[in-house]
Amino acid sequence: MTKSDPSLVNSKVLADFKVGVDNVIFSVDTKQNRLLVLLSKRKDEPFSGEWGLPGTLVRQGESLEGAAYRILAEKIEAKNLYLEQLYTFGGPNRDPRESPHSFGVRYLSVSYFALVRYEEAQLIPDQFNNTTWYIIEKVPQLAFDHNQILEYGYRRLRNKLEYSPIAFDVLPELFTLSDLYQFYETILGTNFADYSNFRNRLLKLGFLLDTEIKVSRGAGRPASLYRFDPVAFAPLKDKPMVFI
Amino acid sequence: MTKSDPSLVNSKVLADFKVGVDNVIFSVDTKQNRLLVLLSKRKDEPFSGEWGLPGTLVRQGESLEGAAYRILAEKIEAKNLYLEQLYTFGGPNRDPRESPHSFGVRYLSVSYFALVRYEEAQLIPDQFNNTTWYIIEKVPQLAFDHNQILEYGYRRLRNKLEYSPIAFDVLPELFTLSDLYQFYETILGTNFADYSNFRNRLLKLGFLLDTEIKVSRGAGRPASLYRFDPVAFAPLKDKPMVFI
Repeated sequence: MTKSDPSLVNSKVLADFKVGVDNVIFSVDTKQNRLLVLLSKRKDEPFSGEWGLPGTLVRQGESLEGAAYRILAEKIEAKNLYLEQLYTFGGPNRDPRESPHSFGVRYLSVSYFALVRYEEAQLIPDQFNNTTWYIIEKVPQLAFDHNQILEYGYRRLRNKLEYSPIAFDVLPELFTLSDLYQFYETILGTNFADYSNFRNRLLKLGFLLDTEIKVSRGAGRPASLYRFDPVAFAPLKDKPMVFI
Repeated sequence: MTKSDPSLVNSKVLADFKVGVDNVIFSVDTKQNRLLVLLSKRKDEPFSGEWGLPGTLVRQGESLEGAAYRILAEKIEAKNLYLEQLYTFGGPNRDPRESPHSFGVRYLSVSYFALVRYEEAQLIPDQFNNTTWYIIEKVPQLAFDHNQILEYGYRRLRNKLEYSPIAFDVLPELFTLSDLYQFYETILGTNFADYSNFRNRLLKLGFLLDTEIKVSRGAGRPASLYRFDPVAFAPLKDKPMVFI
């Protein structure tokens, strides 16, 4: 919990705010098994020249989601991009533009979360290469409280893998069960679950369709390619279940 | 998704905001099997005299959570009260104080969620009885978009019952499995699950302790009183699971 600053809550005067949106956009490079997050180098003060989450301030007449999609459209092209609201960070003194004793305007951040298919997500080039994918383990110190926002988004991503079919939105259409396990491992860490338990549990849920096409990957027997079956999943949609 | 209003996004001028917090506080009256939500009658314009979620506007130097706890402390005394952030509603024109064509100050609402133990939650009396528990089915048309915020909170409550031990924070310390099923039914609706499946699934998770004290409630055999065992639950805390 962000505490109020007792030295500052000395009156009933309402705070004035500007509202920012910050996007935590994840992607999985399934060829190299890396979890990536989209970062932008800031062009303006404060924290000019430092890395942060792609964000903007909300304009007159603009919805929060509208602002989140606007900034995203400036950075990346991706099919079926789905953003969801993550969390709102609004404690006093989270932005150096707020002078703590001037009772100046405060800056609140409404964060949004997305997972996009790496192969289809095209970064929109700008002349300074100011937006790029970062490997999650190599994210530097970010502007503002963006490391904390990113950590929050990372937790949401891990939770969603456990309870929702989000993986199938971004995996290739056809995948082996080993590809699927590898995808989960890239996000949740090595040995997040026993492979045969994982495989059995998912097959039992009944929404993975064996295409009976076989592929060989390195040594070992050829493996079946599966696809996610949205029709078989539909009746499960609102049922509580765990995938791992 | 709340859309931006295209007729209004006609410039890059930043919007100015006041930030409100609105609390969705649920309680279950286990004697009468009713799900309740705390509502307040508004004293000020807009919507003066109408019912709404207890809320306030954030003051200078005050955190979002600080404002949420402040308004709560004015309405209710409850032990171990735990609030969590729910969602932020911030589209244009959600508050009549925003004149749509004046580009005036906008009002954003950060909502918070809690479930409190009914028997221990004392409403703090004010001279007009302006705060009261409403049965969820009888909630009237509320001020602003508060029906929508309440609906969002209700969904969060149902989800939390499926995945987290939130019920044991508010049930009496000792309960029969039938009490527990009834509690779930009050929130999730009649026949949300087969009783013996529910019972077996929960017992298998291993954190319900049979005290071997028997109680008789009406007809039928005496039933065992159980209690939630936080020590047995601790290793399961971060594991994905479903309770129903």
